[in-house]
Amino acid sequence: MQHALPMPFGLKLAGYAAALARSRERLRRLRKEALALQFGGVAGTLAALGENGLKVSERLAALLDLPLPEAPCHGHSDRVAEVAGALAILAVTCGKIARDIALLGQTEIAEAVEPPGSGAAIGRRRLATAAISAATLAPGLLSAIVAGQMQEHEGAVGGSQAQWQAFPALLLVTAGALGAVADIAQCLEIDAQRMRENLDHTQGLIMAEAVTTALAAKIGRDQATRIIHEAGRRALAERRHLSMILGEDPRVTSHMTPGELARAFELLSYQGVAQTFIDRIVGSLSRSARRP
Amino acid sequence: MQHALPMPFGLKLAGYAAALARSRERLRRLRKEALALQFGGVAGTLAALGENGLKVSERLAALLDLPLPEAPCHGHSDRVAEVAGALAILAVTCGKIARDIALLGQTEIAEAVEPPGSGAAIGRRRLATAAISAATLAPGLLSAIVAGQMQEHEGAVGGSQAQWQAFPALLLVTAGALGAVADIAQCLEIDAQRMRENLDHTQGLIMAEAVTTALAAKIGRDQATRIIHEAGRRALAERRHLSMILGEDPRVTSHMTPGELARAFELLSYQGVAQTFIDRIVGSLSRSARRP
Amino acid sequence: MQHALPMPFGLKLAGYAAALARSRERLRRLRKEALALQFGGVAGTLAALGENGLKVSERLAALLDLPLPEAPCHGHSDRVAEVAGALAILAVTCGKIARDIALLGQTEIAEAVEPPGSGAAIGRRRLATAAISAATLAPGLLSAIVAGQMQEHEGAVGGSQAQWQAFPALLLVTAGALGAVADIAQCLEIDAQRMRENLDHTQGLIMAEAVTTALAAKIGRDQATRIIHEAGRRALAERRHLSMILGEDPRVTSHMTPGELARAFELLSYQGVAQTFIDRIVGSLSRSARRP
Amino acid sequence: MQHALPMPFGLKLAGYAAALARSRERLRRLRKEALALQFGGVAGTLAALGENGLKVSERLAALLDLPLPEAPCHGHSDRVAEVAGALAILAVTCGKIARDIALLGQTEIAEAVEPPGSGAAIGRRRLATAAISAATLAPGLLSAIVAGQMQEHEGAVGGSQAQWQAFPALLLVTAGALGAVADIAQCLEIDAQRMRENLDHTQGLIMAEAVTTALAAKIGRDQATRIIHEAGRRALAERRHLSMILGEDPRVTSHMTPGELARAFELLSYQGVAQTFIDRIVGSLSRSARRP
Repeated sequence: MQHALPMPFGLKLAGYAAALARSRERLRRLRKEALALQFGGVAGTLAALGENGLKVSERLAALLDLPLPEAPCHGHSDRVAEVAGALAILAVTCGKIARDIALLGQTEIAEAVEPPGSGAAIGRRRLATAAISAATLAPGLLSAIVAGQMQEHEGAVGGSQAQWQAFPALLLVTAGALGAVADIAQCLEIDAQRMRENLDHTQGLIMAEAVTTALAAKIGRDQATRIIHEAGRRALAERRHLSMILGEDPRVTSHMTPGELARAFELLSYQGVAQTFIDRIVGSLSRSARRP
Repeated sequence: MQHALPMPFGLKLAGYAAALARSRERLRRLRKEALALQFGGVAGTLAALGENGLKVSERLAALLDLPLPEAPCHGHSDRVAEVAGALAILAVTCGKIARDIALLGQTEIAEAVEPPGSGAAIGRRRLATAAISAATLAPGLLSAIVAGQMQEHEGAVGGSQAQWQAFPALLLVTAGALGAVADIAQCLEIDAQRMRENLDHTQGLIMAEAVTTALAAKIGRDQATRIIHEAGRRALAERRHLSMILGEDPRVTSHMTPGELARAFELLSYQGVAQTFIDRIVGSLSRSARRP
Repeated sequence: MQHALPMPFGLKLAGYAAALARSRERLRRLRKEALALQFGGVAGTLAALGENGLKVSERLAALLDLPLPEAPCHGHSDRVAEVAGALAILAVTCGKIARDIALLGQTEIAEAVEPPGSGAAIGRRRLATAAISAATLAPGLLSAIVAGQMQEHEGAVGGSQAQWQAFPALLLVTAGALGAVADIAQCLEIDAQRMRENLDHTQGLIMAEAVTTALAAKIGRDQATRIIHEAGRRALAERRHLSMILGEDPRVTSHMTPGELARAFELLSYQGVAQTFIDRIVGSLSRSARRP
Repeated sequence: MQHALPMPFGLKLAGYAAALARSRERLRRLRKEALALQFGGVAGTLAALGENGLKVSERLAALLDLPLPEAPCHGHSDRVAEVAGALAILAVTCGKIARDIALLGQTEIAEAVEPPGSGAAIGRRRLATAAISAATLAPGLLSAIVAGQMQEHEGAVGGSQAQWQAFPALLLVTAGALGAVADIAQCLEIDAQRMRENLDHTQGLIMAEAVTTALAAKIGRDQATRIIHEAGRRALAERRHLSMILGEDPRVTSHMTPGELARAFELLSYQGVAQTFIDRIVGSLSRSARRP
């Protein structure tokens, strides 16, 4: 909430995409590994089927297109809990994205806004609200499902029943959260000019680390840190731009020309390898999308 | 808790081993995939390192023997949550095993007993208690860690801090639960004779499904079910063995010889493919143990 | 699960009644204190009502028969969370009772049995299962409602919405749990003879503390404890009754006559003030029931 | 996050104080009612004390200055869960306050700022972070404590042990959260001028409801709502003040003089009974503080 460094909005979006892609990967893997046939009769022995137990299992798995595990897992629902974990992680990832958007959409910030709905709901952020609400519910539902693993013997009283009440609820809130984030992605209104203005409002403090780095190259990190820190406090107290304070400080001007100082305050000069990170994420998402 | 079918104790133990092995597999996979270098500076851009950001990242990952992800994931802690999920699932798996052992160790059942400790703790099941206690704590800790994913922008206030308070606690309770189950496995006293006696105490009702199946082959499932159901109620009311009730019922004796009836009540005749399941689980555990 | 002392079944039931009464008291209090009118307009100022804000509030509270708090509590939902806490506590209290009943109803114990349902569900404990399942869900739902208190400013995005999704669910599972326990109370079949038999099966170990106390009065607590402890291990190892082992031990027989020893093993002689506790609980429940 | 109505900062602070006071009231009540002597021996019968059970209980309660309940509550820990509920509610109340402060302290808003710490932590909101982190942990810890009520019979394996691991942790995080909020209250820097500037930045939209109400008195609510809604969209699109748009609209100017229109936009004219609410809260807090 307190900007400490300039952060390219593209890197923020790439981070969202990468997190959602990790969730997709988790669910893809679990689709193959965790959704398995559970078929063993009351005690997991298939005794009622006599000699045909294994054959019936195989046929059933084939018909349902489900992997056939080496044995039924009576009384153990860790696979259910693992899928629930992946769903809850996705729901809260969506909630995190939605909260960021809600924060960026605050009247005073307004860098990226979920457009208002119609009628009385002016100013309501309904999509973000849906995703954040889902993310608030998901951890509690997950905890009930994981606690429901605690079932006696071959799954007697209460644990699995709790799982099958909480699981559909978790699936619903996760789907709702994901749908809301997908809709936000469709309609989000991004205001690049406002982003730049807001950065300007930091009175140059957002570039404090950049300027410290530049100055440190001349006079050492300890002294540079101390000077910029003092200047930062004065900038806040006097409501002036950090570059003005530094431009008057002989400990700075004796080592940096006005041009060097100005360059150290250029936002685009201090984005590190952000673009490389964005390119990598976009690249691997493109490759992943091309997969069947 | 209410036995419905004879369940080989070996299959129960194999089920424990399989569940623990699935947890080990989860943690092994996460050791490779989820424990990744997180290194990006305050904003995830590595700006402070100038041109050397990527090189420093690579060197750091190599030194720490950690995978280097395509980009840092500032503000996204889904990998932390995923590891927490695997830990909580393991803790509750251990709790489930411990609760079973506590149930089997009840004075009136006494089929498999955690041996009493010394001194005042006679009769206390300390190992099972430790594992069940851990399993009661784990879902709540997991929910805090998953909720902690909800962090603003690049990870500002509160979410990640909560994760790093709850994560070590979850790790500790999980380690405690696993240690307790490992100790139970070392010291568990199994009483096969008592198991047989307890099965005998069901007055043959435990074999109701087996006898129904045998009788159904002669007179059809509907009628067989009705006859055995009635006989079961009489056995309970008169405190006699189900086989005695059936041996006096002409609807049964006209289709089954005393020898056939006796064979239908033999426990070992109604274990389905339990042994195959046990062999498969043991086989794949042996193969897995041989892996590096 | 491991009996250490004889526990009168009446005291157990009185304990259930007392716990349920505490929950009733909590909800009665919250009916008066926490269910309050929440009415303040969007910002909690009643600005849209001009001069009539307070009068409208008073009239609305009167019509709804709700207390009118000194001010609306926009953005604060601690009262909702407090009611949710009372509900979850009740749900888990019901779950605890149901689990006890499920444990007492195990085939090998059979001291108090939820009677079997009809048809295929023989042996299923459906009421206990419903209550235990509810108790497994309630803590997770509660955690979502308490987490939902975390709402920005005057209650913006996500927190309160999550509460109003989880609250009805919690109300439903609590009602279900309470209904199941009420039904169990109606139909529970209690087998006093079986209770006595099960106590006998402990080979007298259940009276170890009583006998230790009696012997300690003669030879001091340290030595008495040591002797009974040794004898207890021998009783288990030799499958004999503790009184037989002690009756052969000169360290005991030189201080206690056979009559004294036998009296020390009488169950009813070692119930402390259980009856007083039962009477007190029943007395205060009767008084409470007579209240309007 | 999206201002819809002007909200006096004093009412927001009064709301915090009222919520904290409700938490204090809860804990005061529980100090008297829920912290009770729990003393009954292994089975809750006090059998080991022979005839002196009640007398010892009374003396112990007097020495510990704890209420003596009518009977020990073996196996029931609802009172522990109730105290945990009150603590968690307090922790999240603190977290809610801290999040508000963090939101108000964002660089772009800066209406109320937790002053920066020293050294490297410039811009870090350490107090708010501590409280929000605690609030993220508390619901999970509470759920473990409530789940721990699920203990077998007289409190056998795992439930109460989990409670006594989670309870101190919950107490610690709650104390931490409360301490952080108390410190925030000491050091918070409030910028009234900035508040007014930020309100001005809403281009008058924050007064849309007030103006609608004023206009509705002349031309009916339906038409007034429609006109202001249209004008609001234009104000946003054209980046002009809502009062300018309305001042040019003959549907408005034919019913409201420029003076009436200007008055409708005065912030202080649309605070409803906020001051009454503040006075009431402050009054009852003062009375409560004077109580012993």
